[in-house]
Amino acid sequence: EIVAALEGALGGGPLAGKRVLVTSGPTHEPIDPVRYIANRSSGAQGAALGAALAGLGAEVVFVTGPADVPPPAGVQVVKVQTAQQMLQAVQAALPCDVAVFAAAVADWRVASASDRKLKKTKDGMPKLEFAENPDILATVSQMTEGRPGLIVGFAAETNDVIAHATAKRKRKGCDWIVANDVSPETGIMGGSENAVHLISDTGVEDWPRMGKDAVAQKLAARIAAALS
Amino acid sequence: EIVAALEGALGGGPLAGKRVLVTSGPTHEPIDPVRYIANRSSGAQGAALGAALAGLGAEVVFVTGPADVPPPAGVQVVKVQTAQQMLQAVQAALPCDVAVFAAAVADWRVASASDRKLKKTKDGMPKLEFAENPDILATVSQMTEGRPGLIVGFAAETNDVIAHATAKRKRKGCDWIVANDVSPETGIMGGSENAVHLISDTGVEDWPRMGKDAVAQKLAARIAAALS
Repeated sequence: EIVAALEGALGGGPLAGKRVLVTSGPTHEPIDPVRYIANRSSGAQGAALGAALAGLGAEVVFVTGPADVPPPAGVQVVKVQTAQQMLQAVQAALPCDVAVFAAAVADWRVASASDRKLKKTKDGMPKLEFAENPDILATVSQMTEGRPGLIVGFAAETNDVIAHATAKRKRKGCDWIVANDVSPETGIMGGSENAVHLISDTGVEDWPRMGKDAVAQKLAARIAAALS
Repeated sequence: EIVAALEGALGGGPLAGKRVLVTSGPTHEPIDPVRYIANRSSGAQGAALGAALAGLGAEVVFVTGPADVPPPAGVQVVKVQTAQQMLQAVQAALPCDVAVFAAAVADWRVASASDRKLKKTKDGMPKLEFAENPDILATVSQMTEGRPGLIVGFAAETNDVIAHATAKRKRKGCDWIVANDVSPETGIMGGSENAVHLISDTGVEDWPRMGKDAVAQKLAARIAAALS
């Protein structure tokens, strides 16, 4: 993957001169110093995408939450924990030509995380107030100035995958949605393979199940084609 | 560490013939297929303890949640996700001579985790009902029959460390508590060092800050001494 990144950068691949933002991994939203709420995400698909885009010559800014999989070589890595930190890192990375939002961002955070460990009480659970996190995909997709030319969102669903993802594309205002079924029985979450649908203004493409590296290379090639 | 484990097993170390249960790592409590609540725990201290106890010749059953650090060599590994699964694995591992509960078990779980991904609604957060998890340390400490002869609990605190841990020892009914301050500014959580207090019926010992491996070896030696 280092070789591919170098080849892309030196050889002036199809994305040479393009700046691409990739988000990856989960976010962790603190409840108190020892507890947090998280989304399941190994970061494998995001890391593969970062590597594939760098391999085609792109300058990649890779904003990642605490993932199981290390970031790829040949990208600029920005590490964050929470959705709010991820939004800040994304905004700091703009402007860019393409933004790929592969991170599994927590929709909610605890409104006022405690700076002390919450103790069990006789009254049971401590009261947790939740607040909605910023919607990074929608925020960037709906920018009126400096919006990236191509914005790719991801939709991890467990039912009605195409319907949910198609609605998500319209609601957020992004250009493409890469949708997949992460029900436990698919083995996709935490696994090495992925089966995705690419949803754009021209409709839905069903890609066959393949390795996450192969999905990344196919998507990177499609991004390069869209920009050429 | 493999060499140490082999030496312990072959050389008939001070814990040869003793069966020791160690729990380690966090638990993950599902909210829905893609979200969960977790405790922060790298599993580093628990893994070091498992290795140190095996190194002294113990037969170690190592029950671990999804930790960052791999389980040590030379132990019998049982992998779990949730507190309820951890309790079952612990009960299945009994009887044992010593039980060391180093895992950071979530106190609460979502009462009825959804088998579908919860969607954002106009009404905001989905309603989450919480239920208290089983208290593994108290359950085993208060066994009237077949209780392990020596039970060591851990207390990760962020304030009033000694007071909280001393009260915890009495409340749970365990023999020793290893207490530490995991406030972010200590760098202990996720770090390579630990600064612990050993609390027993004879009082509080303050151990100097040292590597987690050194804490593990010192504690394993104390366990061996207590059993001899």
